[in-house]
Amino acid sequence: MTKFGVHERPLPDLFADAAFDAFDDSGIEPPEIEALYFGNAMGGMTENDTHLAPTLASHIGCTGVPAQRFEDACATSANAFKHAVEAVESGRHDVVLAGGVERCTPETGLGTGAMTKVFVSAAHRQYEQPAGLTFPGVFALLTKRHMHEYGTTEEHLAEVAVKNHYNGTLNPRAHFGRETTVEKVLDSPIVADPFHLMDCCPFSDGASAVVVASEEAAESFENPVDVAGVGHATDVVPLADKDALPATQAARDAASQAYDQAGTTADAIDFAEIHDCFTGAEVMATEALGLFEDGAGGPAAAAGRTALDGDVPVNPSGGLKAKGHPLGATGTAQLVELTEQLRGEAGERQLDDPERAVAHNLGGDAATTVVTVMEARQ
Amino acid sequence: MTKFGVHERPLPDLFADAAFDAFDDSGIEPPEIEALYFGNAMGGMTENDTHLAPTLASHIGCTGVPAQRFEDACATSANAFKHAVEAVESGRHDVVLAGGVERCTPETGLGTGAMTKVFVSAAHRQYEQPAGLTFPGVFALLTKRHMHEYGTTEEHLAEVAVKNHYNGTLNPRAHFGRETTVEKVLDSPIVADPFHLMDCCPFSDGASAVVVASEEAAESFENPVDVAGVGHATDVVPLADKDALPATQAARDAASQAYDQAGTTADAIDFAEIHDCFTGAEVMATEALGLFEDGAGGPAAAAGRTALDGDVPVNPSGGLKAKGHPLGATGTAQLVELTEQLRGEAGERQLDDPERAVAHNLGGDAATTVVTVMEARQ
Repeated sequence: MTKFGVHERPLPDLFADAAFDAFDDSGIEPPEIEALYFGNAMGGMTENDTHLAPTLASHIGCTGVPAQRFEDACATSANAFKHAVEAVESGRHDVVLAGGVERCTPETGLGTGAMTKVFVSAAHRQYEQPAGLTFPGVFALLTKRHMHEYGTTEEHLAEVAVKNHYNGTLNPRAHFGRETTVEKVLDSPIVADPFHLMDCCPFSDGASAVVVASEEAAESFENPVDVAGVGHATDVVPLADKDALPATQAARDAASQAYDQAGTTADAIDFAEIHDCFTGAEVMATEALGLFEDGAGGPAAAAGRTALDGDVPVNPSGGLKAKGHPLGATGTAQLVELTEQLRGEAGERQLDDPERAVAHNLGGDAATTVVTVMEARQ
Repeated sequence: MTKFGVHERPLPDLFADAAFDAFDDSGIEPPEIEALYFGNAMGGMTENDTHLAPTLASHIGCTGVPAQRFEDACATSANAFKHAVEAVESGRHDVVLAGGVERCTPETGLGTGAMTKVFVSAAHRQYEQPAGLTFPGVFALLTKRHMHEYGTTEEHLAEVAVKNHYNGTLNPRAHFGRETTVEKVLDSPIVADPFHLMDCCPFSDGASAVVVASEEAAESFENPVDVAGVGHATDVVPLADKDALPATQAARDAASQAYDQAGTTADAIDFAEIHDCFTGAEVMATEALGLFEDGAGGPAAAAGRTALDGDVPVNPSGGLKAKGHPLGATGTAQLVELTEQLRGEAGERQLDDPERAVAHNLGGDAATTVVTVMEARQ
């Protein structure tokens, strides 16, 4: 993956940086790639650039391969990855590239206000957009209900931001490299109650890519990791139709599928990369993934259980909060972190010999979730 | 599929019309659908509506299923279909819905000029868009070269329009229901030389959907047809990098894959639905699919060989030219025509007992092509 942050370069060049890193890492050449599973969320609106998959295939030396764009809001590249895994699992392809790219910063794009307006296109067109329900509001509603039901506090949420900012200081590819404190989070301006500015992830530019290979093809790779399961579920939209707002039901369903495929349970997960677009989203996801009981996510974060030295580290990469959030690149970037941690190559933020990890990538008004379980090779 | 034309209704309602027709036709209920493979090309830009798959799943009674949006310009829903077939073929799902929806008319959208500007987002961002190369220009360049190499004439092209308009008069779901003549085509204003207005397909509103089922699940269906092969290839972009402009190489590669999977050849194809966004595109595609020798497509059309009573009928539905072209709905609409013809249910435009047919769906600057072979049940 590229560093996340500001990249004033065309999308194809940015994606190529991630793709060539993936080729180099796996020791393969572009012509060996049989298909491209590619994600970009908002390039039509932000850059007047659609039908990007063939352009990128041409640009990275993979001309002619089946190449397709997935758009599932922020869960875009995890969904591309899911289909890449299915293509390899079914025997249709042996070696494919999955990844995504996006440019969202004010420097390369439309500016934060306009970008928020573009991104609200992923909320419900008839019921949520006319109400002015942009995404800080979507997740604020879910989180407020979580606070009401379980007693989660703004301090709990702030602890998530503090942890992820600290982890980001240890990740050279993170958008933000500075620590913060609970006081600073709580003193930052309110964006959508209960979220302060420092509860919110940034919009970033960036790209990420992974090579997905069959068991046989992977034998020539230096240090592969195993994809043990990929779950994918959606939830009813609009928000008003959901049975239980803070349950984030799609995450529960997708996790259940992924754990079943992997033959494992939440108890056996050593760490997680979670879609913390807002601090409250991380708290709810730790519960939906079964890492903590419902309602225990906030206190667990505040008690340090999700820190690098906790019993279930969450977002060792810094997460969306500190590593950054280039929409279509976020899903496969989580898988890059899983890969590097499971290999023991995560540098200063390396966890203690993890064997099994989970990634949680969420899209839209809590509508799409893709959950991936990966394991170190024994 | 819905009638193609003007539909002043929200996208979810329009898609539901096609989806419920597909449910009724197959005799299944929405909760039996295990996944939604969905295509929409430009809804972000035209309607500020992205992340549509979960919205549509909720709207048609399939809440919670894995649902994803594909965007591959005009080849969008054929690509969704390809992945639906792969999901069933691999055993992951038994019954899935594939389809697409789009609103492009001046009545529902941005107007023709603005829509052309939106749609040029599918051309190359660095090299083609700055040159003002909108899609009539893209296909005019390919066709001009075809005329230069093979002697194809404007009259040949006009014959394609005349045939497809005639077929459209027999299709109650076609956008246009009026015949035309070679003289009228040649007298219509030039859009991009050699194309007159009447060489160009319209922008339409519409939706289409098909139920894809495993062999076993299909046993309960009244009149299923077989998917014998689905090929998918891309070509280098931008246009300037292509080896041979009128070859439309992606179509050749995709057709080769589809024929191989089906264990058949072009000689055994009884009819074709072809992506005739412009008349020249139909001529080139008949050659790329192997229905005629290179250079013989124009004279074949003029000689009536592709008419309903010809030896290789092309676009019995009226094609994009007369049936209409709601971008993301076009690919699966072609498959609806294949299905009805192979069943003998195509009414006034019914062909004489066809056994095997091919659909050709093209996206972008001749960059993506999906080719599907379907067969009647014996």
